[in-house]
Amino acid sequence: GDICCQFPIDLFFKEMKSNKHMTRKVIHSIKVGVALVFVSLLYLLDPLYKQVGENAMWAIMTVVVVFEFFAGATLSKGINRGIGTVLGGGLGCLAAIFAQAVGGVGKAIIVGITVFIFGAAATYTRQVPNVKKKFDYGAMIFILTFSLVVVSGLRAEQVLEIARDRLSTIAMGFAICLFISLLVFPIWASDELHDSLVARFEDLAVSLEGFLIISFNSTSHSKLTLMLKSLVLHMLLSISTLAQGFSKEYFENVNEKEKSSFNFSSKCKSVLHSKTKDESLVNFASWEPWHAKFGFCYPWGIYLKLGEDLRDLATTILSLKGCLKSPTQPSESNTCRQPVKEPCEAIVASLAWTLRELGESIKKMKKCGSEDTILPKLKTVRQELSQIPGPSTLGTNNLERTDGLGLAT
Amino acid sequence: GDICCQFPIDLFFKEMKSNKHMTRKVIHSIKVGVALVFVSLLYLLDPLYKQVGENAMWAIMTVVVVFEFFAGATLSKGINRGIGTVLGGGLGCLAAIFAQAVGGVGKAIIVGITVFIFGAAATYTRQVPNVKKKFDYGAMIFILTFSLVVVSGLRAEQVLEIARDRLSTIAMGFAICLFISLLVFPIWASDELHDSLVARFEDLAVSLEGFLIISFNSTSHSKLTLMLKSLVLHMLLSISTLAQGFSKEYFENVNEKEKSSFNFSSKCKSVLHSKTKDESLVNFASWEPWHAKFGFCYPWGIYLKLGEDLRDLATTILSLKGCLKSPTQPSESNTCRQPVKEPCEAIVASLAWTLRELGESIKKMKKCGSEDTILPKLKTVRQELSQIPGPSTLGTNNLERTDGLGLAT
Repeated sequence: GDICCQFPIDLFFKEMKSNKHMTRKVIHSIKVGVALVFVSLLYLLDPLYKQVGENAMWAIMTVVVVFEFFAGATLSKGINRGIGTVLGGGLGCLAAIFAQAVGGVGKAIIVGITVFIFGAAATYTRQVPNVKKKFDYGAMIFILTFSLVVVSGLRAEQVLEIARDRLSTIAMGFAICLFISLLVFPIWASDELHDSLVARFEDLAVSLEGFLIISFNSTSHSKLTLMLKSLVLHMLLSISTLAQGFSKEYFENVNEKEKSSFNFSSKCKSVLHSKTKDESLVNFASWEPWHAKFGFCYPWGIYLKLGEDLRDLATTILSLKGCLKSPTQPSESNTCRQPVKEPCEAIVASLAWTLRELGESIKKMKKCGSEDTILPKLKTVRQELSQIPGPSTLGTNNLERTDGLGLAT
Repeated sequence: GDICCQFPIDLFFKEMKSNKHMTRKVIHSIKVGVALVFVSLLYLLDPLYKQVGENAMWAIMTVVVVFEFFAGATLSKGINRGIGTVLGGGLGCLAAIFAQAVGGVGKAIIVGITVFIFGAAATYTRQVPNVKKKFDYGAMIFILTFSLVVVSGLRAEQVLEIARDRLSTIAMGFAICLFISLLVFPIWASDELHDSLVARFEDLAVSLEGFLIISFNSTSHSKLTLMLKSLVLHMLLSISTLAQGFSKEYFENVNEKEKSSFNFSSKCKSVLHSKTKDESLVNFASWEPWHAKFGFCYPWGIYLKLGEDLRDLATTILSLKGCLKSPTQPSESNTCRQPVKEPCEAIVASLAWTLRELGESIKKMKKCGSEDTILPKLKTVRQELSQIPGPSTLGTNNLERTDGLGLAT
């Protein structure tokens, strides 16, 4: 009965989730299509075409290249493109005017030399890690604009005019992008970052519960308890570190435990490999203007730190699963295992509960009752842990002695 | 004396390494500069300019956008650009001709509708994970070219001619990129992938040795031995999996152990976060033609699998370090710890040796004596392990019982 009840809920949630992703993708595609049609009007409508002429091409190019999935990414790319074009165009004009002044064969030589120097220097700058992270696209556009302006300045007489016209059409393209990206069904990188962080708490809680199932099927008693003790101590530290920054008041009862699906290992791994995604989302989120729940200058750095802590936790869970699984020892009496099973399950449930609690508090952005609910719970866990009969009394003594060490700080 | 001797070697190696990176960056920058000068000749030399005219702009744009650090990346982007331009241009021409045939106000409406449909559809395709990984850039260029051709086809009468001229200049730009990227000091993604994989073996070996130092300073005896046993069993499995695919004959004695630098934790983490880099390098490497030691259709998938195994190993090492560190128990007699220390050190040294051995065999691309040297070594480790006095005889018995289980398969 239990499985029958959970199954449709599971399916429904999965569909909801994938549907949400689908919907966002479709919305993004339609937005790009609309932006393209808008920018095409520069060509299609005669009065507009008379104003901009062939330069309308640059507006189309800007829309295609700059319009990204997340609003923050669009802003970041657009501003990069703007700065790169202005800088490249400005320096290009100066170089072109200088080359004009020299004249003759020297003109071509000077153009060649400046193109080489600026191209190589900007390419080198692009490879500096900090520049690469935030301004890679801007540097590329700088090289492009600089080369185009210098080189075509050799032929066309009105370099300044060309530069001005192109810049204004690029600005038009960017304005269309901004308008549609930020105001029509915006897709915020900050929301994605926030949601993915919250989901990771849930993923880890599910993994933890799954880890328990495996361990009771295939490991020796003594090893399991010692492992579990180390795991719990390590997790107590990690979780209490997490709890210090967060807190909450409302707790939604999470019923669908998804225990039926045994893919918790891959969930753990996906948490582990979230670093690159986190970094790019934080980068985009920091470009995004004030919206909804996120204020101006929201401390996105904390998300990076929390993500790092979660990855540490995932490492622990994953490797202990690995350790427990590797040598299969099916030949141990169930009677020996039984007395440990219940307290272990209680402990793991408490830890999973704490993780969900913390995740919820982040989701609701409310200060959670760290002092009122979570810390007492963790202390209970620690006491329960010391009551499990261990393979050696030595270990248990040590555990009792360190009681309150991690939580007091 | 020991530290004095190691310090300059350390510094020298670091400088060597960063110098190699620096040199490659400078070489890449110079290559881009040279490519830009070459492509500028289309403007600078009168006979060439008479041929291509303003379309030379597209050649410059191609060089700036397509020239990437790795030869494989340049190839991939160039081919993407080529396919995207041809497809987009072709479909764009058809749509433009169709719109011309309709004429009147319908012309503009048809152009708007096709731009919307193709733009939205291609944007949606770009978000499909498999397409995004390999053909994201091609899809973007498709949208760009399609829009430009359809829209400008409304004004210019000779759409086909425009498309042909642009395509030929793009091909010129790409040819210059290819020539300089592949033939002048090429920087191969496959070399980078290969070297980084080899370096990770060494990093893990160093981390393992560092882990031993920490554990003997701050952990209880019983916990350590049990932990170590689990660790070793898990590693034996991982390493023997690794060893099955690789082998070697020559072993360079690695003397500089860099034990003085205690950053092994960060080394382990860098191994852990290598997934994204690996995937992009494999993607680039698969575009690269036959060169040096890598044959045609080299099995790059194996590198992904090996990387995954190494990340698993790194997870184990990292989390055990965490587990052992978290509760500091300084109050244990040294006498109790002494008898375990030496066999533990021997075991860790053997494991580190095995890792280095495997790394070397990949580096030299020689079949290593898996049967002759590594497997006997691992069996010795397993025997040594069972001789360490454990906190419970139960654990030791189980370990002995599983002897040969992992290695026999």
